[in-house]
Order: sequence, then C-alpha cells, then structure tokens
Amino acid sequence: MKKAKKKIKAAILIIGNEVLSGRTQDLNVSFISNWLNINCGISVDEVRIIPDIEKTIIFNVKDLSKKFKYVFTTGGIGPTHDDITALSISKAFKIKYGFNKEAFSILEKYYGKNNFNAGRKKMAKMPFGSSLIYNPSSAAPGFKIKNVLCLPGVPSILQSMISNSKKYLIRGNVVDEKNISLYTVESNIALELEQIQKKFEKKDVSIGSYPFFRLGKVGVSVVLRSDNRLALVKCYNDIKKMVKIKKIKIFK
Amino acid sequence: MKKAKKKIKAAILIIGNEVLSGRTQDLNVSFISNWLNINCGISVDEVRIIPDIEKTIIFNVKDLSKKFKYVFTTGGIGPTHDDITALSISKAFKIKYGFNKEAFSILEKYYGKNNFNAGRKKMAKMPFGSSLIYNPSSAAPGFKIKNVLCLPGVPSILQSMISNSKKYLIRGNVVDEKNISLYTVESNIALELEQIQKKFEKKDVSIGSYPFFRLGKVGVSVVLRSDNRLALVKCYNDIKKMVKIKKIKIFK
Repeated sequence: MKKAKKKIKAAILIIGNEVLSGRTQDLNVSFISNWLNINCGISVDEVRIIPDIEKTIIFNVKDLSKKFKYVFTTGGIGPTHDDITALSISKAFKIKYGFNKEAFSILEKYYGKNNFNAGRKKMAKMPFGSSLIYNPSSAAPGFKIKNVLCLPGVPSILQSMISNSKKYLIRGNVVDEKNISLYTVESNIALELEQIQKKFEKKDVSIGSYPFFRLGKVGVSVVLRSDNRLALVKCYNDIKKMVKIKKIKIFK
Repeated sequence: MKKAKKKIKAAILIIGNEVLSGRTQDLNVSFISNWLNINCGISVDEVRIIPDIEKTIIFNVKDLSKKFKYVFTTGGIGPTHDDITALSISKAFKIKYGFNKEAFSILEKYYGKNNFNAGRKKMAKMPFGSSLIYNPSSAAPGFKIKNVLCLPGVPSILQSMISNSKKYLIRGNVVDEKNISLYTVESNIALELEQIQKKFEKKDVSIGSYPFFRLGKVGVSVVLRSDNRLALVKCYNDIKKMVKIKKIKIFK
C-alpha cells in the first residue's frame, strides 16, 4: 500500500430500497468508515443512500467519483432482478458490461457446473477491466473499476471481504480521536469549547460536542479528532484544564 | 393535513461528523422514513450524510430542496460551536439569521432568566420567518423554513417531536408492504422474480429480494412494496403460486 502525503477522502454510496424505506437498518456506513480510517488513513466525507434505480445510480456514481478519491458502493451485486449496480456502473463509465473470466471461474467452481444457473452467472458480470475483490464467505466477488469499489450489502459478507480491497487504495494519514465524557450540559461549556476550537482550527483539530443520557444522568461527550497527534494532545489538555477550572465531574 | 394526488418524495440530510466518522450509528434514517410513510404517505428517496462544514451544508440544502418536495435535516441545532445548521440554512436561502421571538420565549421560560446563557440563547436563532417544530423533551424547538424541516440529531428527542412536523406536510399515498421469507437461495428464484416484477412494473409494485441468515439457515426475504393495494395483493399471490410450484418452504 503506497502512502500519500495529502488527506484522502472517500464517499460511500448505499444502493438499496430496503435501507431508504426504513425496513433495513444500515450497518455498513459506520463499519466502512471506521475500517477505512484505522486501516488506510482514508476519511469518509459523504454518504448517500439511493434507490435501486438505474439512472439514479448512474448519476451518483458519476458525481461522487469525480468529487472523491474513492467511492465505495454497497448493495445490488447479487443474482436477482433488483441487483443492477454492476450494469449501472458500466453505463455510468460507458464501459462494456459482461462476464469477468476470473469471477466466472470462481463461481463455477463454487457452485459446480450443474448448479451454475443464470442468476449465479449474473454475479460474474461486471464492467470490462474490473479487478476483483475476493469474497471468502460466499464466493461472489466484489470489484473495482476506476476509483469505484463495489461491495455487497449484507454486512457480514461485506465485513469478511473488505480487507481484500486494501491493495487498491493509497494510504493517507489516520485520524486519531480522543474523547472525554462530562457531567454537564452543552450550554455550560459552549463558550469555552468555541474558544478552544478557534485556537486549534489551524492545527486541524475538530472538536465535536454530543449530549447523551446514561444511567439516568445527562452528560456531554466531547470528541476531538485530528491527524496531527501533537496538536490533538495539546487540545485535549486544554479541555481538561477548562473542565478542572469549571469544576465539572468526568464520567469514568 | 391536506392530501395530494401524486407521490410525495422527501430527502433526509444527516448533518454530523460523528455519523460520518463511524463513531455514532445513525438511527434517524429508518425512523424518519418509516414515520413519513406510515403517517404521511411520503417516501424518502434519498439520504445524504455530510460533515459539519458550512459550505457543504449550504450546497446540499440548496440541491436537495430543489429536487425534493421536502428535506428533513437532523443534527447541528444545539448550543455549541459545531451546531451550524440554522446559520447555514439561512445562508443557503439568503434569509436573515436571528432570534425567533417565540423560540426565545420558550427557552427563556424553560431555563429561567438567570440561567439563559449565550449557548442556550443560540438555540433560538434561526432563519427569519421560520415556523417552529415544538420539542416536548428538552424545549429547544426545531424549525421549518421553505420546504426544509430541521430536527435535532439525538434520536430520542427527534422521535418525541417529529409528530409536530405533521402540520407542515401535504399527505400522499401510503406505500404498503408485504413480505414472505423463504427457505431458498436468491439464485433459485431470480428468474421467476424477474418475470413477476416485469408483470407488475406498470402497476407500480416493486419487488426486493434480500438474503438472510437466521437460526443457522440461509433464506431469502421477498419484499413487495406499492401504494396500489390491489396490485400488491395480486403480486403477492403470484409469488405464493411460484413458491408452491417450486416446492419452497416458507419461514413462519
């Protein structure tokens, strides 16, 4: 894996009526985002969830692949009529859609010649020139074409194969995180947090403030994120000083 | 609530670094989408998750509010520096940003004059001319400006107040759903599902096919969705016929 000097930004495109309708709770965004940051130093800067409609997929693949270094799609690469991701991406990039020899051979071996029916064969179809993302769970591979990496929608399968996409990615800087949970309300520390944020803005530390309810108590999680480790620690120390001065208790 | 003849489509814009980074699992998309369909006959046709960056919020609010009948935003309406949704939406629509008298009075009463500090006052600031979405949990209201409805990010608070947005929405047709879970694999029914889908496409029934793993068995959930109740039932009967012919067992 090569290492880049700059920040590397990716988008996730969740393709699936079942997520949009609220029937299925998405679990892939948080998994992919955490995995990309920790393993590749790549940050996810936009997510879109869209329906299984060809022209919508085409529009969003073209749009996001121009705006981001990488686009990860999930969903729509199975054997049924509503699985139209591979065909739509071929159309988005005006690349021929057809059997990938390697994928065909993997699937034929997995199912056996006699059981390799039309639906199963469909899973070997993708844009011409795609590279495969191997699938140790259920054989049907994902694929990479240009800067778009296509993964399945089922979380357990996606999770089992995502590490096989690593070889296609350039490594960036990992964003570290520090957080502190406080027995207070946001409005009690809003002014101080703003001042500390201003001080560390140029050092690329972002401070987030998130209210929560835990064990019947209200509190605030203050979350610092940065790829500049030294600045992150300095900022964290400033927050701890502020907390001490204001006599706020820390959640352990 | 008025009723429209046409389908009504909405988008959800999740604003928050914590969701993008994978730190926080979003729960608002499925809740809002289900609530809108069941209570208002409105379907969610796109979701975007974006960071707390002013220009990004402005771009997406302008873009989605042009493309959809309604846009629901979540997050960024609290008292801290990273809560910039109200200001960004004011800028997106070139509307003056300042105190909403009613919101100011609600919050002043809730906190008491002596405890109504700058952070708390900030939650009364919004685009001029906004209508309030009342908040029975923690007082700070959401708001509606043009076709954009702004809700908080904390799921429990959002859920407690969403019904107060109903008066701003025109009612459409509720999409009904029927589903059947089968002891089979997708590729075994792909061809048949495609034929049935083709038959019912013009009747606006969409058929989704979702593999699952349950109690150590693999299966497929076939999900039919339509606002045409009669067509939905006919399509469901066709699926049941196919299942019987192919001797597939049904998950109970």
